[in-house]
Amino acid sequence: MNWHQPVSLNLNVRGLGRSATLAISEKVRALRGSGQHVYDMGLGQSPFPVPTPVVEALRAAAAEKDYLPVQGLPALREAVAEFHQRKDLVNVSAERVLIGPGSKELMFLLQLVYYGEIVITPPCWVSYLPQARIIGRKVSLIQTASAAEWRVTPEQLEQAFEMVHDDLRPRLLVLNYPSNPVGTTFDADELQRIADVCRRFQVVVLSDEIYGGLHFTGEHVSIARFYPERTIISSGLSKWCGAGGWRLGTFAFPPELEWLLDAMAAVASETYTSVSAPIQHAGVTAFRGDVEVERYLWHARRILARLGRECAQILLAAGLNVPMPTGAFYLFVDFGAFSGQLAERGIRDGTGLCHRLLEEVGVAALPGVAFGRSRAELTARLALVDFDGALALAASENVPLDSDLPADFTERWCSQVLEGARRIAEWATGASAG
Amino acid sequence: MNWHQPVSLNLNVRGLGRSATLAISEKVRALRGSGQHVYDMGLGQSPFPVPTPVVEALRAAAAEKDYLPVQGLPALREAVAEFHQRKDLVNVSAERVLIGPGSKELMFLLQLVYYGEIVITPPCWVSYLPQARIIGRKVSLIQTASAAEWRVTPEQLEQAFEMVHDDLRPRLLVLNYPSNPVGTTFDADELQRIADVCRRFQVVVLSDEIYGGLHFTGEHVSIARFYPERTIISSGLSKWCGAGGWRLGTFAFPPELEWLLDAMAAVASETYTSVSAPIQHAGVTAFRGDVEVERYLWHARRILARLGRECAQILLAAGLNVPMPTGAFYLFVDFGAFSGQLAERGIRDGTGLCHRLLEEVGVAALPGVAFGRSRAELTARLALVDFDGALALAASENVPLDSDLPADFTERWCSQVLEGARRIAEWATGASAG
Repeated sequence: MNWHQPVSLNLNVRGLGRSATLAISEKVRALRGSGQHVYDMGLGQSPFPVPTPVVEALRAAAAEKDYLPVQGLPALREAVAEFHQRKDLVNVSAERVLIGPGSKELMFLLQLVYYGEIVITPPCWVSYLPQARIIGRKVSLIQTASAAEWRVTPEQLEQAFEMVHDDLRPRLLVLNYPSNPVGTTFDADELQRIADVCRRFQVVVLSDEIYGGLHFTGEHVSIARFYPERTIISSGLSKWCGAGGWRLGTFAFPPELEWLLDAMAAVASETYTSVSAPIQHAGVTAFRGDVEVERYLWHARRILARLGRECAQILLAAGLNVPMPTGAFYLFVDFGAFSGQLAERGIRDGTGLCHRLLEEVGVAALPGVAFGRSRAELTARLALVDFDGALALAASENVPLDSDLPADFTERWCSQVLEGARRIAEWATGASAG
Repeated sequence: MNWHQPVSLNLNVRGLGRSATLAISEKVRALRGSGQHVYDMGLGQSPFPVPTPVVEALRAAAAEKDYLPVQGLPALREAVAEFHQRKDLVNVSAERVLIGPGSKELMFLLQLVYYGEIVITPPCWVSYLPQARIIGRKVSLIQTASAAEWRVTPEQLEQAFEMVHDDLRPRLLVLNYPSNPVGTTFDADELQRIADVCRRFQVVVLSDEIYGGLHFTGEHVSIARFYPERTIISSGLSKWCGAGGWRLGTFAFPPELEWLLDAMAAVASETYTSVSAPIQHAGVTAFRGDVEVERYLWHARRILARLGRECAQILLAAGLNVPMPTGAFYLFVDFGAFSGQLAERGIRDGTGLCHRLLEEVGVAALPGVAFGRSRAELTARLALVDFDGALALAASENVPLDSDLPADFTERWCSQVLEGARRIAEWATGASAG
């Protein structure tokens, strides 16, 4: 090795590890490979298969080989625009939709082209922070409170914006609802009040609604209803469509933010060029939706709602603090009430907590610090996805959608997840402590 | 609009247009839409369909929905490593292969993580320069000479490296052969001498060999044969496999550059995450190759060789300067001999030249400036791909590979391209001047 080589790395990326979610899934894979039983509550990947009509559409498009327009296949942009019009009652135009290889990549490009401060509200999705670090952007964190179910309040936002005496400071506020890692969402009233604050400070909002289709009662509301002029709606196939590995994300811009779209498309043309053509063709079927896709969504939501609530109840009964979820497939658990006992067991931060959970009861989870919380905080995210989604969907399809699932449904089809939650509850209360 | 919004753009991306190749293809699409006949020599997209076994592999993998490892599907990395071992006689390990959504994206990540000077040798592929600009990197250009068929010489490299009194300056030299935009390549002796210079200055080489499979006689040689310790080999499905729109590129690293691979994978995990799963599964079939894929390659090469040479001859006969191609599907034409006549017609630079070519004889081409040459230079790249590759392949398959294609083959199956070349020749000599 030559002395100069190790210094030829960009300082912004030195020491940057692989993303926490991906790192945990590689660890789980290794443990399982060595024969250990793991309750995998780490990676947040949809347990469900891609809906059949969407898979069929990919098969039909397998010979599509042309480079597509940078912004995306026109038919797909049209379908995405109609999707937001139909589902969110928001006026989106196909000309202002941008397709990317995952919304994570689009978020990176947005941070890259936007010259301003990124405002995030931990606990929040893990990649915003390292992205900002790679690019060298300033990130402003507004920590939310457990008492508010980890949702930022309009008052908190107003206070944070007022505190800096720079009213027109360019700011990009990132909101994600239904939320990863919490599983709760904003109601229309909260969104209206947040919109009012953002309008006053002319803040650009990146509204990450990738779990919108997994709101348990199908009642997701977008902040774009109240703040259309500066909201970018982010969505994609990864969560509600079960196609995380396909890599297709979407951004929808209002006319007022066309300058951001244009700059992002210019950078896209020099980086990923355009999203894989067969995948985009298949995406048209997904975003257009049809009876079969809608039916799939209703069954998926019913299963996730039941499982989320049951797991939350198990943890609540043990004295842990966890908000009751209303969408997506996560729980955000606060072990703070047990801090004394945990300290006696040598556990003083979230990372130690997750390490010991894996070691002592075989449950893989991610600590709050991976979501922007403090190191010391005894919080962790559980992803409730370690079950065979295809089997569960097939079982749910035998039960009419206007009936309840049978009492033993999750025990039968999602037993690993329930058992994981039980093990955590017992472990926390000391019932199974080493 | 608010006064502050237009300033909230990263200065590095302000005024950045979409990439020149993509811009020309959108212009051609618009002209054709308005009923105009265009000889499209703009976008460099393979005219051939994706080989049938590869399309079938994509169909079979359509339900693959899991996030794949950041570095790539292990079976694909294995296939890529074996591909380079088999084709290039270079010792590549699957552990040191990185899969990305196009080699353009991988090149961007490499520039992002590498802290050093990027050295390019115009005329060269268009995206290196804007990528460096977006990231804010220093680029050093070594202009090549028409007399050397636009290939950088070992002497030029040595002189450039010596001139800066900083022997261990971290440098990344980008070489692309067979070359876009020239269609020529380095022979083993040239590569050996370039390797010697690079070794002396410990330069990292990004060896872009994406057209390696389209060397007309299948005799592509990699510089990694002579300089394995600091060469990254870049390849992908876009050119030899006809799958530009699929977006799959590959980098292969030597053990000595593992630190670059690791940094790139870390950034990948925070941006594109992993390449589309169905596409990666199909890629295994492409890189493994089989009789059918090899047959496809031989037919494609035979067609491209014939067409490239015929077009070059048409232009040479008119007095234009153009190197005889030995691979890929481009010609790089120097109109310098006609500078006097062109000036009389009001044409004083490459952009004006291409503008008038499109206007007066309906041929779309890209000026040398899009490849890093000076504005004033009267050069242009022609992409020889405006024909139905599936028809041409089918016709070629009727002629045994050890025979020559019939004399009228290109006239019959690639007439648009020939006619485009003829129109340029006539136009340049004034035969068809307005």
